Amino acid sequence: MKVVLGISNRHVHLTKEHLEILFGKGFELTKVKDLNQPTQFMSSSKVTLKTPKSFIENVRVIGELRDYTQIEISKTDAYKLGLNPPVRDSGDIDNSETITIVGPIGEINTTGCIIADRHIHITSKQKELYGLNTEYVSVLIGGEKGGIISNVHLKVSDPAYYELHLDTDDANAFLLHNGDVLEILGTNNDSQNM
Amino acid sequence: MKVVLGISNRHVHLTKEHLEILFGKGFELTKVKDLNQPTQFMSSSKVTLKTPKSFIENVRVIGELRDYTQIEISKTDAYKLGLNPPVRDSGDIDNSETITIVGPIGEINTTGCIIADRHIHITSKQKELYGLNTEYVSVLIGGEKGGIISNVHLKVSDPAYYELHLDTDDANAFLLHNGDVLEILGTNNDSQNM
Repeated sequence: MKVVLGISNRHVHLTKEHLEILFGKGFELTKVKDLNQPTQFMSSSKVTLKTPKSFIENVRVIGELRDYTQIEISKTDAYKLGLNPPVRDSGDIDNSETITIVGPIGEINTTGCIIADRHIHITSKQKELYGLNTEYVSVLIGGEKGGIISNVHLKVSDPAYYELHLDTDDANAFLLHNGDVLEILGTNNDSQNM
Repeated sequence: MKVVLGISNRHVHLTKEHLEILFGKGFELTKVKDLNQPTQFMSSSKVTLKTPKSFIENVRVIGELRDYTQIEISKTDAYKLGLNPPVRDSGDIDNSETITIVGPIGEINTTGCIIADRHIHITSKQKELYGLNTEYVSVLIGGEKGGIISNVHLKVSDPAYYELHLDTDDANAFLLHNGDVLEILGTNNDSQNM
């Protein structure tokens, strides 16, 4: 089964409360463009991520607003910032890392910093149709620095736009680009595929 | 077959001529510590890598001097610098990327910038002993962001210190650390392993 890749650069999701602390009372996100996942969009707003060790500027705020604030970074970012965030499914932010987010108006110190797990957005119908009777799959990657990535989470939602999301570390390690078409191998328990 | 990992951060190898342009006539590298590979050492000298787009400071010069200058960076570094270096075996620098190296005394604009291929240093005797009758192997990686890396070059030299070298992109994508023990799966043509 083929799947198209979308590469996730570092970004943040904000609650309404945190958005207003960072950008001012009554501030609303401006859409730059829709993302493939329903209701999600790239906003024009950017923040700085700050820790005692370092900082990273120009980190995009992704809309729509959520009921939790979440900061998704790569392991490379984590080393730069001196953090050790867990690898997590989006929204699973208990005991995640703490970080400071700096906006033009104010700043917040918050938990919610994670490394997003490798995942494929898929509807329950597609999952059944494609015969993916499992929660995790492996994906084959070709090319000079090819290989197989394991523990790719089949993240079911209805609606969903069917695509694979990898972070920039995975993308750069395997020399991948947005829109690359990759092959799902099957379940992690399938020894023929591992 | 197990192999211990050594992670290669960005670094440069220099010719005597280039060393003297960067650091001054008669300059000699000072050893900070021996590296595992025979005759190779971490020197106390650092340079800046510069391109029209950006720069990276504090890049280590690795000794001993060579008869070619080579700059090894990751794909993440390459994006920052606006370069597109080829994935190459060390020393194979024909048609590699051009970059400026800045030292305390002078600077050079030189070819020789590559992304080092994934490789395992091994002696001809070890290669035979371990039954690795091939030029490329795959390596199994466990953990939350595990998988398999392919096209790992068995780089034979006598002497050699047996170890796997990966760049920081591979290490960070797979959450690996120096000294991790990984499993060589076999040849890339062995379908049971892929």
